[in-house]
Amino acid sequence: MASGTDRRPIGLFDSGVGGLTVLSALMDRLPAESTIYLGDNARAPYGPRPGDDVRAFTLECTRWLLAHDIKLLVLACNTATSQALPEVRAASSVPVLGVVRPGALAAAAATRSGHIGVVATTGTVGSGAYPAALGEVAASLHVTQLACPRLVPLVEAGAREGAEVDHAVRGYLGELMEADPAIDTLLLGCTHYPLLRPLIEQAVGPRVAVVDSAFSTALAAEDLLDALAARAPDGGAATNLVYTTGDLAAFEVVADRIFPGALPGVEQAIVTAD
Amino acid sequence: MASGTDRRPIGLFDSGVGGLTVLSALMDRLPAESTIYLGDNARAPYGPRPGDDVRAFTLECTRWLLAHDIKLLVLACNTATSQALPEVRAASSVPVLGVVRPGALAAAAATRSGHIGVVATTGTVGSGAYPAALGEVAASLHVTQLACPRLVPLVEAGAREGAEVDHAVRGYLGELMEADPAIDTLLLGCTHYPLLRPLIEQAVGPRVAVVDSAFSTALAAEDLLDALAARAPDGGAATNLVYTTGDLAAFEVVADRIFPGALPGVEQAIVTAD
Repeated sequence: MASGTDRRPIGLFDSGVGGLTVLSALMDRLPAESTIYLGDNARAPYGPRPGDDVRAFTLECTRWLLAHDIKLLVLACNTATSQALPEVRAASSVPVLGVVRPGALAAAAATRSGHIGVVATTGTVGSGAYPAALGEVAASLHVTQLACPRLVPLVEAGAREGAEVDHAVRGYLGELMEADPAIDTLLLGCTHYPLLRPLIEQAVGPRVAVVDSAFSTALAAEDLLDALAARAPDGGAATNLVYTTGDLAAFEVVADRIFPGALPGVEQAIVTAD
Repeated sequence: MASGTDRRPIGLFDSGVGGLTVLSALMDRLPAESTIYLGDNARAPYGPRPGDDVRAFTLECTRWLLAHDIKLLVLACNTATSQALPEVRAASSVPVLGVVRPGALAAAAATRSGHIGVVATTGTVGSGAYPAALGEVAASLHVTQLACPRLVPLVEAGAREGAEVDHAVRGYLGELMEADPAIDTLLLGCTHYPLLRPLIEQAVGPRVAVVDSAFSTALAAEDLLDALAARAPDGGAATNLVYTTGDLAAFEVVADRIFPGALPGVEQAIVTAD
């Protein structure tokens, strides 16, 4: 809505490619805003790593982004958000958003039965970040989580439809809905899952609202820029930069499977400890 | 969730007493935060006034709040939000939240049918602020508004239940639901209406989710303080100050009807043009 004068980019961090769904939602909602995305593919996935490593790597990468004169930092990564958000906020000179709270707020608003299902990676489920965030919004919510470890590899292999991924999605969601048939809201707690949204919506049927943290986070970024009067000018030339700490060709192969043809060129980032 | 070190108060502005529901939600969600509330009762209600007056008065009052070293400014007033938010943001040295967008986001998340009803004062309905904010979240939403001019006087007269207010609520909501029977989400677009929530929920029945801008705004304030790492310390001594530009005794009479026994003492504020 608002037009402003702050042309500095929004920084987005993810351990790998999943946060590109958040970038995509941001570019869609805020076309006038420049962005700079960093994927720490050299050390991905973060899920199996100890919390101290996740925090140290996330702080290194967000320092790299802060050195690029960003106005807002988005942890576009469920693992980094659930394990390192307070530390990143304490170390950041600019406001910091994670992906967990915006999704939790939308899910809490969406449910009527008070029964919410959360699908995520094994690491995010284990962190308890979504049940904690939902519990902070309303103590009365019933939250049932399910780890869906087969979905990220399928998405990264390019599967968006077809028997194999459909079978996996239906299997997971059938198990979740059987665990709590009163679930009327499904929170996608992994940045890869919005890419499977059509399959997921078919699997759960129209009675269940599907809430996507990537979209909710883009709305939260919009709100934050507005509250701070820090929007870029409308009609300005936005630049969208994507960096990876890992192998460029490998990143592009996976990223192209996720966003065919829509990604800016990818550059190499060198991230160092202090 | 987070504990911080920023003890500065949150400033809240309303044309009168309605914003006390936002103050109440904030005090409930953020008991460690100090607050300072200013009601411009000397010039209330703002609804019938020309936009230029609303903007001038709102800027005068928010300057008064900013002079009290606040860390966040909340326009706890639908009229001020819909008519003066961009001007206040441009003039403010601290982040500014309005009540319209948080309610709109929650309603957009809550609806399944895509049909949302908005009840508000005549002025807020006429401003089109809620349809505009809902349209920004999702262009596909169908929004039906209804002005309910009898409700504010009833609330300010102390009516929270009983035949007269129940009849008024049922009459308005019956008319709204008849205008669009597909409405499944009702947005309370006036800061007084949360006080009638039990009656409103009974009138619309369990199929319709009731979304309250006051609560949504308190959640948004929480998010903003967290993103900025600007929370007060947990367990600190929060102070909650309430000022009015109008008659103290009259303010207290109405405020006590709304929040019996729960209000801090009210002080006189002198607000001047530049």
